[in-house]
Amino acid sequence: MGLQISVLTIGDELLNGEMADTNTAAIARLLASRGFIVRDSLSIRDIAGDIVGALRYLARRGGVLIVTGGLGPTADDLTAQAAAVAFDRPQETSSEALAQIHRHFARLGMTMHPRNDKQAQLPQGADILPNPGGTAPGFRLCHQGCDCFFLPGVPAEMTAMLEQSILPALAKQAGQAEILHERVLKVFGLSEPKTEALLDAIRLPEGVQVAFGVDFPFVHVKLRISGDTATAHLEQAERLARQTLGDVIFATGTDSLAATVARQLTTAGQTLALAESCTGGLIAKLLTDLPGASAFLERGAVTYANSAKRDWLQIAESLLEQHGAVSAECAVAMAQGIRQTAGTDLGLAVTGIAGPDGGTPDKPVGTVFIALTTETTERVKGYRFPGDRDSVRQLTACMALDWLRRHLNARAQLKKT
Amino acid sequence: MGLQISVLTIGDELLNGEMADTNTAAIARLLASRGFIVRDSLSIRDIAGDIVGALRYLARRGGVLIVTGGLGPTADDLTAQAAAVAFDRPQETSSEALAQIHRHFARLGMTMHPRNDKQAQLPQGADILPNPGGTAPGFRLCHQGCDCFFLPGVPAEMTAMLEQSILPALAKQAGQAEILHERVLKVFGLSEPKTEALLDAIRLPEGVQVAFGVDFPFVHVKLRISGDTATAHLEQAERLARQTLGDVIFATGTDSLAATVARQLTTAGQTLALAESCTGGLIAKLLTDLPGASAFLERGAVTYANSAKRDWLQIAESLLEQHGAVSAECAVAMAQGIRQTAGTDLGLAVTGIAGPDGGTPDKPVGTVFIALTTETTERVKGYRFPGDRDSVRQLTACMALDWLRRHLNARAQLKKT
Repeated sequence: MGLQISVLTIGDELLNGEMADTNTAAIARLLASRGFIVRDSLSIRDIAGDIVGALRYLARRGGVLIVTGGLGPTADDLTAQAAAVAFDRPQETSSEALAQIHRHFARLGMTMHPRNDKQAQLPQGADILPNPGGTAPGFRLCHQGCDCFFLPGVPAEMTAMLEQSILPALAKQAGQAEILHERVLKVFGLSEPKTEALLDAIRLPEGVQVAFGVDFPFVHVKLRISGDTATAHLEQAERLARQTLGDVIFATGTDSLAATVARQLTTAGQTLALAESCTGGLIAKLLTDLPGASAFLERGAVTYANSAKRDWLQIAESLLEQHGAVSAECAVAMAQGIRQTAGTDLGLAVTGIAGPDGGTPDKPVGTVFIALTTETTERVKGYRFPGDRDSVRQLTACMALDWLRRHLNARAQLKKT
Repeated sequence: MGLQISVLTIGDELLNGEMADTNTAAIARLLASRGFIVRDSLSIRDIAGDIVGALRYLARRGGVLIVTGGLGPTADDLTAQAAAVAFDRPQETSSEALAQIHRHFARLGMTMHPRNDKQAQLPQGADILPNPGGTAPGFRLCHQGCDCFFLPGVPAEMTAMLEQSILPALAKQAGQAEILHERVLKVFGLSEPKTEALLDAIRLPEGVQVAFGVDFPFVHVKLRISGDTATAHLEQAERLARQTLGDVIFATGTDSLAATVARQLTTAGQTLALAESCTGGLIAKLLTDLPGASAFLERGAVTYANSAKRDWLQIAESLLEQHGAVSAECAVAMAQGIRQTAGTDLGLAVTGIAGPDGGTPDKPVGTVFIALTTETTERVKGYRFPGDRDSVRQLTACMALDWLRRHLNARAQLKKT
């Protein structure tokens, strides 16, 4: 099972729509990077009774509890007081905490405001956690088998204290055997149920669990195991999953599809030019989100108007009249046109109807053509992507990137043989 | 006090550091916009026992419970099953839900995968909530005074169903007097503390509260009031805020900056061509996110390589040699070049160093030039935007769009006089 870790974030601003609770995600990410998994997280408002109730509910189950927020000097900061009530301890001024607050103000060349006294009034028996970046000291309390850490809600202070005080404490508590190892395989082009059905049919190494997640339009396959044999078993599980799913897996871990393609292009020394119609620059945007795109992206054309298709891509007026701008013929001509104009190894083009308007019975919304040309080859295919404008544009861009990925994979294989 | 609303989000991915739980914030925001405040929110993993425990804990307190996630077709989707256990009801196939899933696949021209059957197995007595965008139907269950709504975790589906099914139900439950009215003014080009300081100095109508939020790079000013005089007082508050803040306010409500500019261009009948370097297609992408861009966007050039700047924008080699591609001279030439090539009313160009590499002492990362040309005018300005690659690209795109907004505003004023 591993350590049972709960997170409690406290603050009105987390629940009134003003801001997202980024602390929970930051804590989960940091803990996951060390192999710890958060079991659950609760966000509540600055209401004394709710804080007391939540602390009792979460602490009752033992394990580890990480609390953020409500340690400030103002009247609506209630966490220390509520912790004293929840855990039946008196609240008293901690001289160590008070000294730390004084030191903080001295470092800034300031005198402590009397209100900051309040931040040293902690539940009896609390151990002080230093705060290198702010006034509020954190504290740690063990209550009936639950190890509770209280941190300020300011993200930078919270993160620094988590790294400095909590992660080492957790590492000490957890034996190596408890740490959960995870490998995420990212899939494009296979639905979640189909992916699961394929993996159901294979026998994974003992102890490896599979879970699924959707990050539209991608499916994430999560292989998990804890214990000494984790790494070897994960390797084997990934090998088996790859054998079964084949090349719908485009990345492992945190890589995006665009990042995968960018790396392939750079490694292969291949240059690319884009001609986008319905995606309106989205493919270029995705490829340039990460640095280094200048190594392979020569140029991109967003050719919304037919005049742009004629000028820049040498699309003949007769082709547009005969087949229309949304056609296999036009997509191929666009890819050839941009490749020749730019003088690149690859020319990629997309044209389609993203909607909501512009659909016809013959070519309904979601009709998209993708074309990829090289010096010696050309490939084109039509799709009918489901969903709204956003969905059609996302699917078009990802499918186009996936074409590049598969093309560059095949090319690399060919080079090897 | 108003309605007591709790949110429960379910999914391993929310707690293992893979992604932040955006659903809670989205729900809180939508509810807040209708005057409802979330009391607390709990996130848990796909573990049957934890889901049962959380449902019992949250439902025991009555009020309203909104649950998202775990309604998918795979084995790790456990919410419906756990709800049946938690609320002591048998699980049975809902013919209404099944029909809805079949209709969804039929709309997409696909056949239902047998695994999707699972999504129709709901706790007895559940009312079906239609899902206009996906396979998983939602459902509603009243259990011992707690009104529980179950929605899929896919953000777009969740949001649509919240608006369609839940908000009207909540409005029915809450009296009109309780409802908080809100008006959001969106600001670009003024920091949050500066915006607050300016508004602190004015006297708002009685009962109107001001809150602030940041949606980088924008600041949201939220004017809120409840009661019968709400509308009139909000009108007056908006007028005062506009007098004070002036034209840094680019929109009210849910409009984006790009949507504002798109509407202005369409209304003015002005056509636009873009030349993007460091933003790599982001401006074109933003302007084409919403339908109707073909009315004004003739074309966009993503000119990463200098060869593309020469070919398509007629940038002279000597200009590039003398001033470099990141210069005021190059930005103006790009804007003129794209405008002449495309034959549009407006030519907009950006060139800069988004980083992390490519900076020099003279032109550090964040150096960006923006240029806007018309038949009779040209304007160019250099910026040093702070932050990482993402931040520089966002700020560049938004500043460029803001130039268009201000230009079109001035033009509309001129036409009027």
